[in-house]
Amino acid sequence: MRMLDIIQNKKHGMELSAEEIDFFVQGYTKGEIPDYQASALLMAIWFKGMSEAETANLTKSMVNSGDTLDLSGIKGVKVDKHSTGGVGDKVSLVVIPLVAALGIKVAKMSGRGLGHTGGTIDKLGSIPGFNTSITMDQFISNVNSHGMAIVGQTANLVPADKKLYALRDVTATVDSIPLIASSIMSKKIASGSDAIVLDVKVGSGAFMKTIEDARTLARAMVGIGNNLGRRTIAILSNMDEPLGSEIGNANEVREAILTLKGEAEKDLINVACAIAAQMAVAGGAFTDVSEAEKAVMELITSGKAVDFLAELVEIQGGDKRVIYDPELLPKAGFVIPVVSEKEGYVHSIMAEEIGTAAMLLGAGRETKEDEVDHSAGITLKKKVGDRVEKGDVLCILMTNRENHDAALSKAHEAYVVTEVPPDKVPYILDVIG
Amino acid sequence: MRMLDIIQNKKHGMELSAEEIDFFVQGYTKGEIPDYQASALLMAIWFKGMSEAETANLTKSMVNSGDTLDLSGIKGVKVDKHSTGGVGDKVSLVVIPLVAALGIKVAKMSGRGLGHTGGTIDKLGSIPGFNTSITMDQFISNVNSHGMAIVGQTANLVPADKKLYALRDVTATVDSIPLIASSIMSKKIASGSDAIVLDVKVGSGAFMKTIEDARTLARAMVGIGNNLGRRTIAILSNMDEPLGSEIGNANEVREAILTLKGEAEKDLINVACAIAAQMAVAGGAFTDVSEAEKAVMELITSGKAVDFLAELVEIQGGDKRVIYDPELLPKAGFVIPVVSEKEGYVHSIMAEEIGTAAMLLGAGRETKEDEVDHSAGITLKKKVGDRVEKGDVLCILMTNRENHDAALSKAHEAYVVTEVPPDKVPYILDVIG
Repeated sequence: MRMLDIIQNKKHGMELSAEEIDFFVQGYTKGEIPDYQASALLMAIWFKGMSEAETANLTKSMVNSGDTLDLSGIKGVKVDKHSTGGVGDKVSLVVIPLVAALGIKVAKMSGRGLGHTGGTIDKLGSIPGFNTSITMDQFISNVNSHGMAIVGQTANLVPADKKLYALRDVTATVDSIPLIASSIMSKKIASGSDAIVLDVKVGSGAFMKTIEDARTLARAMVGIGNNLGRRTIAILSNMDEPLGSEIGNANEVREAILTLKGEAEKDLINVACAIAAQMAVAGGAFTDVSEAEKAVMELITSGKAVDFLAELVEIQGGDKRVIYDPELLPKAGFVIPVVSEKEGYVHSIMAEEIGTAAMLLGAGRETKEDEVDHSAGITLKKKVGDRVEKGDVLCILMTNRENHDAALSKAHEAYVVTEVPPDKVPYILDVIG
Repeated sequence: MRMLDIIQNKKHGMELSAEEIDFFVQGYTKGEIPDYQASALLMAIWFKGMSEAETANLTKSMVNSGDTLDLSGIKGVKVDKHSTGGVGDKVSLVVIPLVAALGIKVAKMSGRGLGHTGGTIDKLGSIPGFNTSITMDQFISNVNSHGMAIVGQTANLVPADKKLYALRDVTATVDSIPLIASSIMSKKIASGSDAIVLDVKVGSGAFMKTIEDARTLARAMVGIGNNLGRRTIAILSNMDEPLGSEIGNANEVREAILTLKGEAEKDLINVACAIAAQMAVAGGAFTDVSEAEKAVMELITSGKAVDFLAELVEIQGGDKRVIYDPELLPKAGFVIPVVSEKEGYVHSIMAEEIGTAAMLLGAGRETKEDEVDHSAGITLKKKVGDRVEKGDVLCILMTNRENHDAALSKAHEAYVVTEVPPDKVPYILDVIG
């Protein structure tokens, strides 16, 4: 088998065989196939796409390029979730305790974030004592006894994806549906869960700008999951503004707690409950999604939901008093209100700009070596559709950095205020699977 | 300017600016742009093509990546020719003296061949004493006094093409019209002539299999020439069988002499005269192609043409007696007839197979380091359309290699004999420019 023929075949729109795909993935991961041949193939894939079988085979090969998590020591159906990424997305913090409370096993392995805010691991890092570097034995034992656990990624999961993603990033081949879908799904499948609920973000603040693109990506990922024997469901949720009203690490923990009490913004509560319900159904606790949603809402209104988050914090060595008194979370030295210069209605809050502002305040990482400032972040005081008067506070910046001019100007840019209110967009746009 | 954006733009079908193309070509030649980004762009070009302006700008940038020949010391219009390559193509050996005889300046720089037979330089190397390593001063002085000279490529012409071609070869991006056209034309333009006549081969033995593909390539090359201020004409000639009846180095010199005497195969005489006439018109000696063709035929029938080849040999230090007595050319030790196993008509002679046979006999180079055996080659005794009986000699192999079984079997494979004679195809299929 020759890489040249594989490129040639894809270039002419032929379907690659499982053997051809595996030859490429394993050869490239081992360094036997050079970058320049890999990038030529990636570009040919960008133009010609991949069939469902090809995409599944690509994912399978990528999973096989490294370690996989063996969760067979956990009894019952293990359910995982994944978001395609959006600013203010703290849904994982909310759904892990909710789903565990419904009797489903959630064994979550999570990477560190590189971007606007930290990842879930960084967010939990704002709770004093919370340890995400637990051993695999501890991790599995926690899931067995408490239904939930979260661990930072230590194993060598999907090295093919790391190498391919780095190459795609510099060769303009990131935006290919089969490549995005296989990249996401390979990591989920290597993480060992039986069922996967995907939150595909759609809108100006998401990678997928249109509902059509989001549906195509969702179908590709659901196709991979089903082909590789994992029950997979995708929710399409709106991301025309940041989710909820908090961006940052401690900020998002604070808002997760509010969500579990039913006191957060409606968009966040809606999306979190929808995902938790789908996870509960995927895990077999319910057959009907609306029944599952009802049970989720009962957990929230009864006040029990928050106790499960406290339990997660406690079993991983964290200070659970924080959950009942979020004032104990780290606080930033500077608090800067961003004030509206005109009146009207908030038409959109550009997530990209808000995210960049948060990163400039210290909430995220620009490079892998950067330290995340847990206390830095942004609180949105106005959401899309809200009426604003000149002088109203749009949002509040929190930081320990003395120079926050760039973040302030980004936050101003983010808010688009118009004379007429915008059309309402539903929080959940579609469910595929 | 970033290479990533250039790839992105081409991927989305945007026209690249002259600056973007130059950034890529110079950066890649200098090693500042990595192979993997170059190959991604090449694949995007394969899919999206290039406009006439882009192709001209690409060629110009490639020319500027290295040295160019300064032929300003030669008085008058300098005319060059180029063939897209075919087996048995000894047209250059024929047209250089013919065109010079008509008063046009031919300053030919030629590379060494890598393939079935050597290049023009290797073919001339079979004439004792013929020196193609003359100085540039000698080269220019010879063209000024005799109207013709040929020199092996010494200057660092178009290093961008060398690097890009090597990359295209291993990334399945060879077969792209703008890339082929710019590769050919960059070398012609760097070689300094004012006018260029292109011989685009069409058919089973050529890179362009169909007349449509050949026309597209011809138009792209003529477009480049005109855009860069060189008068350019393309002839499309048939290559469903090797040109003429000789393949090899000494063999082709022998047949070039016969052609200049009007005693060679009709296909070869026709193509050579057509190209010589176009060169004479491009050089300004005639305004009418048929007048030029008449003059060329007169040179041949009068017996004067061969004297001009003898003159070329003499001024470059070669033994001109060879031209009048081709028996003095080197001869191979083994002469093996290939005999027909059936009767019928020669339907086609697959040039690829005949070429491979010639290389296996020692006539060509498999790697740059190989030495060419000037005496090795093949003489075709039957051409397309000829009647053959069982036991007739189809062709004769000449070699110094003891083991010639593989070549023999390739030569057998090359001849396709059928019950009915094939349709006649004209030698010259089209003229573009």
